[in-house]
Amino acid sequence: MRPVRDALAWAEEAPGGDVGRVHDLFLTDAVADRHPELEHRADAAGVRVARVTEKAAAGLSDTVTPQGVVAVCTTVAVDLETALAGDPRLVTVLVGVADPGNAGTVIRTSDAAGADVVVLAGDAVDPHNGKCVRASMGSLFHVPLAAHRDVDAVLDGLRARGLTLLAADGHGDTVLDAGADDLLRAPTAWLFGSEAHGLDDATARRADHRVRVPIHGRAESLNLATAAAVCLYASARAHR
Amino acid sequence: MRPVRDALAWAEEAPGGDVGRVHDLFLTDAVADRHPELEHRADAAGVRVARVTEKAAAGLSDTVTPQGVVAVCTTVAVDLETALAGDPRLVTVLVGVADPGNAGTVIRTSDAAGADVVVLAGDAVDPHNGKCVRASMGSLFHVPLAAHRDVDAVLDGLRARGLTLLAADGHGDTVLDAGADDLLRAPTAWLFGSEAHGLDDATARRADHRVRVPIHGRAESLNLATAAAVCLYASARAHR
Repeated sequence: MRPVRDALAWAEEAPGGDVGRVHDLFLTDAVADRHPELEHRADAAGVRVARVTEKAAAGLSDTVTPQGVVAVCTTVAVDLETALAGDPRLVTVLVGVADPGNAGTVIRTSDAAGADVVVLAGDAVDPHNGKCVRASMGSLFHVPLAAHRDVDAVLDGLRARGLTLLAADGHGDTVLDAGADDLLRAPTAWLFGSEAHGLDDATARRADHRVRVPIHGRAESLNLATAAAVCLYASARAHR
Repeated sequence: MRPVRDALAWAEEAPGGDVGRVHDLFLTDAVADRHPELEHRADAAGVRVARVTEKAAAGLSDTVTPQGVVAVCTTVAVDLETALAGDPRLVTVLVGVADPGNAGTVIRTSDAAGADVVVLAGDAVDPHNGKCVRASMGSLFHVPLAAHRDVDAVLDGLRARGLTLLAADGHGDTVLDAGADDLLRAPTAWLFGSEAHGLDDATARRADHRVRVPIHGRAESLNLATAAAVCLYASARAHR
C-alpha cells in the first residue's frame, strides 16, 4: 500500500516526467472500498485504473500476503550523469550490495538523512526488486537513484563533481567521532560494501579516507544498515 | 557458528558463573574437522562435548540451513537489579518489541555503541529466540540483559539509578542534533518502541524528553534498528 501511495504522489508531482511514472493501477474491490482516494488520485494523475479479482492481484504481486493493490511504473533509476546533476552534497554509494532488504533500508535511511542521490554500483541488486521497493518504504520514489556496473566509472564521476570519497571500513584509520567533523563538512560520497564482505580493497583504496564507526563495546561490527545510518547522520549533522 | 564461539568465549572468561553458561556442545564430524579449536576450547572450559550426525544437528537447530554445531547454555537474562548494578551510563530499553530480528540487531548495535545494559520491557520477544541470538551476532553474550514485563517498574528502576529517560519518538519536541549534546551528556536510558507502533504514549510521557531523529528528506521515518543506531551513537559521542 505504502509504495503505491508514494508512486501516485510522484505521479501527481511530476505528471509529465517519465521516471517512475505510474502507467496502471490494479486493485481489488475490497481495497477500492477501503481506500476510495486511490482511484481518484490515479484518475487525476492520468493513470489507467482497473479493478481485478483477489486472485489476479495475488498473481501480479510477489509477496506471500498480497495487499490487493498493484501499481505498474516505469523504472525509477536514471543514468549517473542525470543523478549527479545539481551539485549533490551527500551521496550514498552501495558497492556490490546484492541483498534487496539491505539496499531498500539504506535507500530509506539515505532519504531520511537528506542524501541527494543513491548510486548502486557494481554487481548490485536491481532496485526495482519487490523486496527492495518495500524495504525502502517509498523512498525509492524520493531520492534520485542510479545503477551503474562499472565501479571505477562511478568513483570517477563522483570525484569529477568535487565530492570527497569516504569508504565505510571497519578497519579504517579515520574514526567517525567529533574529530572527523571538519572532514565531514565537505560534500561527501559515502561508499558502503556488502553486508557479507564489506568494501573490496581496491575500491576502498580509491577513497580519500577509510572511515570506521568506533566500536565502544565488544561487538565485532555493525550491520550494513545501522553503519550507514550512523555515517549518513554524522554527515547530515556536519552539513548543518 | 558465531554465537557458539561467543558462548565459549563467555564460558572461558567466567567459568564459575551461571549466566549464559555452556553445558553441552554438539557438533558434526565435518565441523569438528574444520574447526578443531572448538572441541579444545570446550574441553578447557569444562563443557561436555558430543559428536552427532548431520541429521541430529539439524534436529537440534531451528534454521533452514543448520551449521552442524549447537551449544546448550543457561539463559543469559538476569533480573533488573543485577543488570543495573554498577552505575550504568548508557542503557537501551526495548518496550514491547516482538520481532526477534529487530531485537537482536538492536542488542548488537547497543553493544557496538558501548551500552552498559539492554532491558526488554513489557510484552517483548524472548531474547533466547534463535533468530534474536543470531541477529545479535554474539552481542547477547557481551551486554548484561534483563527482561521485565512491568514497564513502569523498569522506568522506576532506571530513574532510581539517576538515569535520564529519553523516549525515541518520531514526533518528539527535542531534535537529536548538535543542540542536544548537553542533554546527552547525562547518564541516559533510551526507550525504543516496536517497529510497527513505536512507543505507546503512556510510556513516552513518563520519559524526561521525547527526542526525534531529524528527517532531512522525505522519508516518513527510520526503521527501529537504524533509529536506535543514530540515538545510541549520539549518546556515545556525547559521553566521550
